[in-house]
Amino acid sequence: MTAPDDVTAERADAARNRARLLEAAARLVAERGAEHVTMQEVAEAAGVGKGTLFRRFGDRDGLLIALLGEAEAEFEEAYVSGAPPLGPGAPAGDRLVAFGCALIERIAADTDLGAALGRQVIHERRHASRTGSAFHRHVSTLLGEAGVDGDHDMLAHALLAFANFETTDYLHVGCGIPVARLQATWVDLVRRVTTDRQVSWPPR
Amino acid sequence: MTAPDDVTAERADAARNRARLLEAAARLVAERGAEHVTMQEVAEAAGVGKGTLFRRFGDRDGLLIALLGEAEAEFEEAYVSGAPPLGPGAPAGDRLVAFGCALIERIAADTDLGAALGRQVIHERRHASRTGSAFHRHVSTLLGEAGVDGDHDMLAHALLAFANFETTDYLHVGCGIPVARLQATWVDLVRRVTTDRQVSWPPR
Repeated sequence: MTAPDDVTAERADAARNRARLLEAAARLVAERGAEHVTMQEVAEAAGVGKGTLFRRFGDRDGLLIALLGEAEAEFEEAYVSGAPPLGPGAPAGDRLVAFGCALIERIAADTDLGAALGRQVIHERRHASRTGSAFHRHVSTLLGEAGVDGDHDMLAHALLAFANFETTDYLHVGCGIPVARLQATWVDLVRRVTTDRQVSWPPR
Repeated sequence: MTAPDDVTAERADAARNRARLLEAAARLVAERGAEHVTMQEVAEAAGVGKGTLFRRFGDRDGLLIALLGEAEAEFEEAYVSGAPPLGPGAPAGDRLVAFGCALIERIAADTDLGAALGRQVIHERRHASRTGSAFHRHVSTLLGEAGVDGDHDMLAHALLAFANFETTDYLHVGCGIPVARLQATWVDLVRRVTTDRQVSWPPR
């Protein structure tokens, strides 16, 4: 039998290992791209046994999915409770602009992880995912707050159809359209939908 | 050696067989769904040998791809040179509305064929396809004709990101959003982008 204190210590250990592994993986992926990072290297960089790495994340895809999950959690934190204009405290139109532009800025990082995970996984995850519906709820709410007259739910779907990973990845990577032009289009869309000609990016 | 007349007769025969096979396939697919149609049935319904069917289209996927190609050619004909408001002769705003609404109306047919062909094939075809760029050129041109002030190319991408097969199929089949609501959203988007409050669907 394990004493309660041991259980607590074990849990703290596990949490620390998990954080270390994800931090090391994120660093290595950022440095050299997801497809050039092995499980062995992640374990070594984190100073954690390879067995622990596999026990925790199953396999390489599991690790990358966890990494994507972490990045998404951070992003959610930023737009739900972070600093304005992405977080609360700015006018709804400005927050819409900041949200889409931040989303578009994440293409490069997502593309890299996405390539490693394969289109299919990403595609299924996005469509079905909690993240997808959180994005939709966020944009729909901001459209309401901006006083837009119309079907907020559907307009949010329409806006996100442009700013989602599939479209921006296709336009950026597939057609070579620079991030700045994608962001300018998002700003233009928000202006037209909210009829708020004041919104701009970068924020005033 | 075959005499020139024989060659001509053979070609006419081949064209007739092809048309018959596609017509029979389209009818059977419409009646019972692509996944419930066998090559044998298509050959019988067309009154053409099964060997000819396989020689002409390779396999079932080849037949379905040809079918989709036919449907797309008909649709292209309709929006390039058919009756207004889809074809020329109506104001650009009305033509934009008609185009998107027609595109959305085709989801059900495409979904059925799409399911049989598999997401992947459809996805690759659409993104890479001549059809996709023809749609983009069409919408971009109409935005110019409607006197929209902005980046027509990018606005066309943004509008089509909503009206494309992936998005509308996901919203209609995946989320249960009725075609009428999708079309109303398209009309609303066109109104906001063109700032032409007159456009409507069904056409005036």
